[in-house]
Amino acid sequence: MKLGFIGLGHMGSGMARNLAAAGHEVTVWNRSREKAEALTSAGALLASSPAEAAQGAEAVFTMLADDHATEDAVFGAKGLVSALHAGAIHIASSTISTEFARHLASEHAKRKQGYLSAPVFGRPEAAAAGKLLVVVAGAKELIDRVKPLFDVIGRATFIAGAEPWQANLVKVCGNLTIIAIIETLGEVFATLKKSGVEPGVLMDAINELHGSPVYKNYGAMIVRNQFEPAGFALKLGLKDVRLVLKAADECGAPLPLASLIHDQLLAALANGQGDKDWASLAQIAARNAGV
Amino acid sequence: MKLGFIGLGHMGSGMARNLAAAGHEVTVWNRSREKAEALTSAGALLASSPAEAAQGAEAVFTMLADDHATEDAVFGAKGLVSALHAGAIHIASSTISTEFARHLASEHAKRKQGYLSAPVFGRPEAAAAGKLLVVVAGAKELIDRVKPLFDVIGRATFIAGAEPWQANLVKVCGNLTIIAIIETLGEVFATLKKSGVEPGVLMDAINELHGSPVYKNYGAMIVRNQFEPAGFALKLGLKDVRLVLKAADECGAPLPLASLIHDQLLAALANGQGDKDWASLAQIAARNAGV
Amino acid sequence: MKLGFIGLGHMGSGMARNLAAAGHEVTVWNRSREKAEALTSAGALLASSPAEAAQGAEAVFTMLADDHATEDAVFGAKGLVSALHAGAIHIASSTISTEFARHLASEHAKRKQGYLSAPVFGRPEAAAAGKLLVVVAGAKELIDRVKPLFDVIGRATFIAGAEPWQANLVKVCGNLTIIAIIETLGEVFATLKKSGVEPGVLMDAINELHGSPVYKNYGAMIVRNQFEPAGFALKLGLKDVRLVLKAADECGAPLPLASLIHDQLLAALANGQGDKDWASLAQIAARNAGV
Amino acid sequence: MKLGFIGLGHMGSGMARNLAAAGHEVTVWNRSREKAEALTSAGALLASSPAEAAQGAEAVFTMLADDHATEDAVFGAKGLVSALHAGAIHIASSTISTEFARHLASEHAKRKQGYLSAPVFGRPEAAAAGKLLVVVAGAKELIDRVKPLFDVIGRATFIAGAEPWQANLVKVCGNLTIIAIIETLGEVFATLKKSGVEPGVLMDAINELHGSPVYKNYGAMIVRNQFEPAGFALKLGLKDVRLVLKAADECGAPLPLASLIHDQLLAALANGQGDKDWASLAQIAARNAGV
Repeated sequence: MKLGFIGLGHMGSGMARNLAAAGHEVTVWNRSREKAEALTSAGALLASSPAEAAQGAEAVFTMLADDHATEDAVFGAKGLVSALHAGAIHIASSTISTEFARHLASEHAKRKQGYLSAPVFGRPEAAAAGKLLVVVAGAKELIDRVKPLFDVIGRATFIAGAEPWQANLVKVCGNLTIIAIIETLGEVFATLKKSGVEPGVLMDAINELHGSPVYKNYGAMIVRNQFEPAGFALKLGLKDVRLVLKAADECGAPLPLASLIHDQLLAALANGQGDKDWASLAQIAARNAGV
Repeated sequence: MKLGFIGLGHMGSGMARNLAAAGHEVTVWNRSREKAEALTSAGALLASSPAEAAQGAEAVFTMLADDHATEDAVFGAKGLVSALHAGAIHIASSTISTEFARHLASEHAKRKQGYLSAPVFGRPEAAAAGKLLVVVAGAKELIDRVKPLFDVIGRATFIAGAEPWQANLVKVCGNLTIIAIIETLGEVFATLKKSGVEPGVLMDAINELHGSPVYKNYGAMIVRNQFEPAGFALKLGLKDVRLVLKAADECGAPLPLASLIHDQLLAALANGQGDKDWASLAQIAARNAGV
Repeated sequence: MKLGFIGLGHMGSGMARNLAAAGHEVTVWNRSREKAEALTSAGALLASSPAEAAQGAEAVFTMLADDHATEDAVFGAKGLVSALHAGAIHIASSTISTEFARHLASEHAKRKQGYLSAPVFGRPEAAAAGKLLVVVAGAKELIDRVKPLFDVIGRATFIAGAEPWQANLVKVCGNLTIIAIIETLGEVFATLKKSGVEPGVLMDAINELHGSPVYKNYGAMIVRNQFEPAGFALKLGLKDVRLVLKAADECGAPLPLASLIHDQLLAALANGQGDKDWASLAQIAARNAGV
Repeated sequence: MKLGFIGLGHMGSGMARNLAAAGHEVTVWNRSREKAEALTSAGALLASSPAEAAQGAEAVFTMLADDHATEDAVFGAKGLVSALHAGAIHIASSTISTEFARHLASEHAKRKQGYLSAPVFGRPEAAAAGKLLVVVAGAKELIDRVKPLFDVIGRATFIAGAEPWQANLVKVCGNLTIIAIIETLGEVFATLKKSGVEPGVLMDAINELHGSPVYKNYGAMIVRNQFEPAGFALKLGLKDVRLVLKAADECGAPLPLASLIHDQLLAALANGQGDKDWASLAQIAARNAGV
């Protein structure tokens, strides 16, 4: 399939590489050109603008930092919307707001272009290995057409509904389950340390109990108190918590746990932790306990 | 080994049965006698009081509802403390307060009796199958002596420290990680429902993401909105959250997430959910979202 | 002074009436015309659009529900921005977001028009009596020019700074102090009732202790459990809490108390209390206590 | 009236002095004798134990730090319970737990002694000036008998009910309204500072709006960032928040705002603020905002 891929950060570069390796013709674009050039060895073609990446493509992925960066790439000067053919599909895999997803769906529809939200779960290593979890939403016919692409980038695909924003809501809810684990571990480890009990014992029991790689990985980071380099920066985690709070506020559902975590993340940001891994949220609980 | 076992509820009966089946001589006592009689088929002997169960035993387990019930069985009329031999060990497997564990340690020490806190993780099925997780704390020499018993009742044993209360702290911290999952799922499912998105999609993604039986089991209960019969009653979960808050308060560590959950559990109790499974906490998030 | 006044709800009509009564030439506009006509008896002139109200005025007030309504009246078809003379001043007295206040300041500056944010504290009775508290921010020279108008509508004026949005931040922070009182009273009254103690006793003590009309008025409403008709609707209170949370989030200050209240207000909204007085927030605490 | 007075700290010494000045025969006792000796100039007699202070008295006040200190003075060696005549009244004015108040009532009843809980609102200056607010509960006949004493120490007396603990519940609920103000001011001032707005402006507006000495006094302390010497130590404030949480937990009423404040107070304690005024709680909000 002829594809465009816009946004080649930690996540996007692995996804684009896998698509190219699977035999698709992938034209890539990235704000800083050297990251795009690195993809040519995998067979990708270089575009000089999002529009050029979208030109002639059956589907074009965006994998960018946030709503703002996506807006630039789609609607800005030489944005993809100006070049995407009628009938072709824009697949937004970034974690964007439900509100912006609705805007994208509406703007693409006006131009007879297809639109799918297809955010992913997984860290850069999973992106590189083609082992992401893909949550997609939008018109069934569109999903069916690009399903083989999801099979390339991920190990499982979940269909969240017929309206694209539904996938974005599922994604930010899923992220909340992860940061909730981090906050929980941060609090209990601080309590144990303050009491003079070794947190590693609880960690071992938790690993047996929950049997979850999420607990295991984040727990190990917190026990070691090692948060750099960041796999996922705390400031990006804060962005995602803001997104879930905003979506819940719009529909009228209280999220007290997300509110609490939002406030702890702000305290972490004020404490200079924005570029550390979001697991460093645990340092706030530790500070509040005086350990 | 000659053993006593006091408290034959959902958890204790499975534990005592496994100890008897492993060839130990187990004398059992329970407040309501018929539960004790049910154990005779497994080879257990019946005692007419905690003291009688402790008489001559090398170790005696207590597996009772709370501090109060344990206090009765230990220090009450015909309590085990009056009969336990010097050098024999009281193993308290109930979820009791760290403060009461210190009291037990001190009182037994005065009488040259040994004392271990050995709370367990796992539901009744795990107790029946001998697959509990045992967290034990106390003098190493005592732990070494009864370690074979833990191998009978559990699939793994974790040593939390040399002071018995440390195991109790690890236990209530571990329970907090479970109820935090329930609160998280309750909030995100309520948000999804209010938005018109099917929670099952997130559940599928979460199961792939976290790969944890805890998420899987509780998530399924919440998606089905089925909380009876209770595997673990909400009022007992509230007791455990109180214990972790109390222990953290004593050492001066704030637990904002536990505070939030405590308040949600009280609202659930006021809503008549005390005897439902503690997963029904999710109903409070649903009510607050109006779904 | 020749003035325009846009927005004649519970608050605006009292303010406009007082300005006319003080001898100013006031041209008024309101979306529903009958409210504007009611002002003619006080000497006000009728305009058929915001632009007409602004035409030739030295200053024009807006007193509208929110950002959206203000945007319509300022930038919409026949909006005031198209008619306001260079050098004339737009005074926005509504509770609007700090972000929108910055937008207004910037847009007016482009047109050489002056802009002040001048939100007010006080209920409709205070507006009618010219006893509001005015918080104003913007260029000192502009404030000096319209200070006499604030003396007409209010009993005291506070200058929050040289940038208009600063007044809006002070306003939403001030509102948070009021809703925090309501939440506090709701919680303690629910506790007293659940315990079988008459809340009126605490109310009497609080009135002596705090000596504040805010406690007195809201406390009386909560003790009587009477929340209709609304003096200030809960859904508007929720809007204001959202504004303070947004402003704090932008600058990176956590507001855990506002987060908690936001979530309680959402639960109240889901419970059908949107059009009741915001003091009805207390009903959520009562429900959670089961009283 | 022949009186005993036990506990001559900042509050008790002013109360005892006023009772003596009003013509009552007051026998005083304090753990550190010099504070008791200071009262002799006001006509007080010295006792060498709580029992001696209670001997022959018609009523004996206790004004001590907490449950523990009160328990010592009442039930300890030479405690007042051993000497108080049948028919005489113990008036506990300390802020004690509702649970301990029930214990006191029951123990005194066994001995045909009267018991009233009569906690007070007010700072040391109010105690010295006889301007406290007294909240009393217990048998009406007893209250009637000692009402003239309350008129000496206070400017108003509120009757909370027929069971003594009811006064203690009203007291801790009242204290929650004060610390809630402190938390609110701390959060909004931190937000203003982080935004570059002078908090004094909001303080002026709040003083006009709320017209409350509580806002005024604590607001001034927070604006000046001056928390020593402590009028009321943060660690004592934490004790009171624990009491209200415990009482609410016992009756099954959630107090999310008190939970939040409890956790902030613990963070303040871990930050070394235990002996500062409880208004220093505001420093936690400031730290979390990075100002």
